Amino acid sequence: MTTRRQEASSALPEEFVRIIRHFRPLAGPGALGLSDDAAVFVPPPGRELVISADAMVAGVHFLPDDPPDLVARKLLRTNLSDLAAMGATPFGYLLTVSVPRGTPDTWFAGFAAGLAADQAEFTIPLLGGDTTSTSGPVSLSLTIIGTVTPGTALRRNGARPGDGIWVSGTIGDGALGLLAAQGTLADSDGYLAGRYRLPRPRIALGLRLAGIAHAAMDISDGLVQDLGHICRASGLAATIEAARVPLSPAAVAADRLALCLTGGDDYELLIAVPPAAEPALAAASRAAAVPVTRIGAFAAGPPDVTVTQPDGSVLPLAQGGWSHFG
Amino acid sequence: MTTRRQEASSALPEEFVRIIRHFRPLAGPGALGLSDDAAVFVPPPGRELVISADAMVAGVHFLPDDPPDLVARKLLRTNLSDLAAMGATPFGYLLTVSVPRGTPDTWFAGFAAGLAADQAEFTIPLLGGDTTSTSGPVSLSLTIIGTVTPGTALRRNGARPGDGIWVSGTIGDGALGLLAAQGTLADSDGYLAGRYRLPRPRIALGLRLAGIAHAAMDISDGLVQDLGHICRASGLAATIEAARVPLSPAAVAADRLALCLTGGDDYELLIAVPPAAEPALAAASRAAAVPVTRIGAFAAGPPDVTVTQPDGSVLPLAQGGWSHFG
Repeated sequence: MTTRRQEASSALPEEFVRIIRHFRPLAGPGALGLSDDAAVFVPPPGRELVISADAMVAGVHFLPDDPPDLVARKLLRTNLSDLAAMGATPFGYLLTVSVPRGTPDTWFAGFAAGLAADQAEFTIPLLGGDTTSTSGPVSLSLTIIGTVTPGTALRRNGARPGDGIWVSGTIGDGALGLLAAQGTLADSDGYLAGRYRLPRPRIALGLRLAGIAHAAMDISDGLVQDLGHICRASGLAATIEAARVPLSPAAVAADRLALCLTGGDDYELLIAVPPAAEPALAAASRAAAVPVTRIGAFAAGPPDVTVTQPDGSVLPLAQGGWSHFG
Repeated sequence: MTTRRQEASSALPEEFVRIIRHFRPLAGPGALGLSDDAAVFVPPPGRELVISADAMVAGVHFLPDDPPDLVARKLLRTNLSDLAAMGATPFGYLLTVSVPRGTPDTWFAGFAAGLAADQAEFTIPLLGGDTTSTSGPVSLSLTIIGTVTPGTALRRNGARPGDGIWVSGTIGDGALGLLAAQGTLADSDGYLAGRYRLPRPRIALGLRLAGIAHAAMDISDGLVQDLGHICRASGLAATIEAARVPLSPAAVAADRLALCLTGGDDYELLIAVPPAAEPALAAASRAAAVPVTRIGAFAAGPPDVTVTQPDGSVLPLAQGGWSHFG
């Protein structure tokens, strides 16, 4: 873990001390104690590697006053969600953290505690990274590494006409949760804000989708837009029935269907499943303890997403309209 | 490559268009066209992986008005320098880019052109990443992946008493180059500013150091401080002779020895070499076309760095005093 520091000191610069104190306890064997120029490890034999990187910026992807442990966990979990979407097993991660000068040690302690909690939950060690200062908002980047049996990674381009469109969990809680966290939507028990601040990467489900799903991705930018990505990658049209989209009781009460369909931060899985594989999907859902719901189907046609209402009419949506801070 | 965008649009959001236009041409086979949730690839058989992540922030690690192609190349090269320090062969990289809203397309075109140039020079493809907006300065993070023959990675902890302390190239040009780029140091031919803006990762030399070097690292935070890291990792004291530290003609003319010894951004290699391996080091230096200079030696003793002057006195230095923007 290389560091760049801003303070003159006759001892170790503050950022090295910070790394030793807060981040070294999180490091896996390949991380070499975070004291070398890079991590070194033997990749798991007979496996393909799956690697993804995502950035999160205060004021864009999380609220500047969100607790640092939840910020850390959201950062790790949004990346774990990419592994879930590929059907991959978590292996390790690297992290860069840019913070304003004067950020207190307690912020780092909280941030590291959040990482520690999720490292335990998802069995994934820190492999390396960097800390630096910035004159702007907290700016984070995480690169996650997973593994799959060769040839089994879930892609976006494999959906076929007639495949059902399935989603895990409930849709729209992330977007509603942002409103709740901002205080513009009632959320008496904190459920919605919790869904926004702490996504649930569907690793256990993703690991069971090989041989079942023709395509998959995670829903980070809104159901309709992300479904459009599968349509473009697979060369298909998609129709979803608005009434079938699973909503949490809190989302039903909020009565903001269009936002639920287009808002981001769900981190649920979007899955293309042929009818013949539906019994296997049901078994995978039970084994992973993650509910799945069929909301529509793919068909031959130009890439496009149509949302129908119970009366058969098409729901007009400002597709692609999600901003993480609407 | 996941993206998060801020604009409402009925077509593909701007950041997806940007990725397709500027970044997709840079993508290697495992990147899946940057259109999936992650990259998927078979790691090179029989090799260990070497992975490092570094962040760069405008106003901290580069000047806000630096040309975007040079910013991109510096980002890639500082990470390549970490691979050089480990003796690793470049394999691929992932990138996250956070920019202020309204950053023009020309900035991305220049940034991608810089990456393309260095991808060709160092034979390394883009594997994935993320783009997002920020209310602060441009904030970049890069994760680099390399490979080594198992057991040959160059570590910091292997130096032994009696090993010579060697450096590649010339020392101090980076720190002087920052002053030159800021206009506070004369630099008529632009040599120093060029050294600051475009590091030369010593990949070719690093690849030849297995079996020669007992320890190595790259000099990013200043010779004296970084030598201190090897001392701590190896449990040794180090003495360097100021007069032996190789300076460029421009650095000699600048007459700022203390800054050269403590300033950062050199991205040269710092190498511990036993006397018996010096002929092999000389051969490696010739083969890589990278000069190396012996500047001192390690000795048993508490971890510490001493810099002696020609009269035998100790040069007083504010060790650890480097700020990337002094």
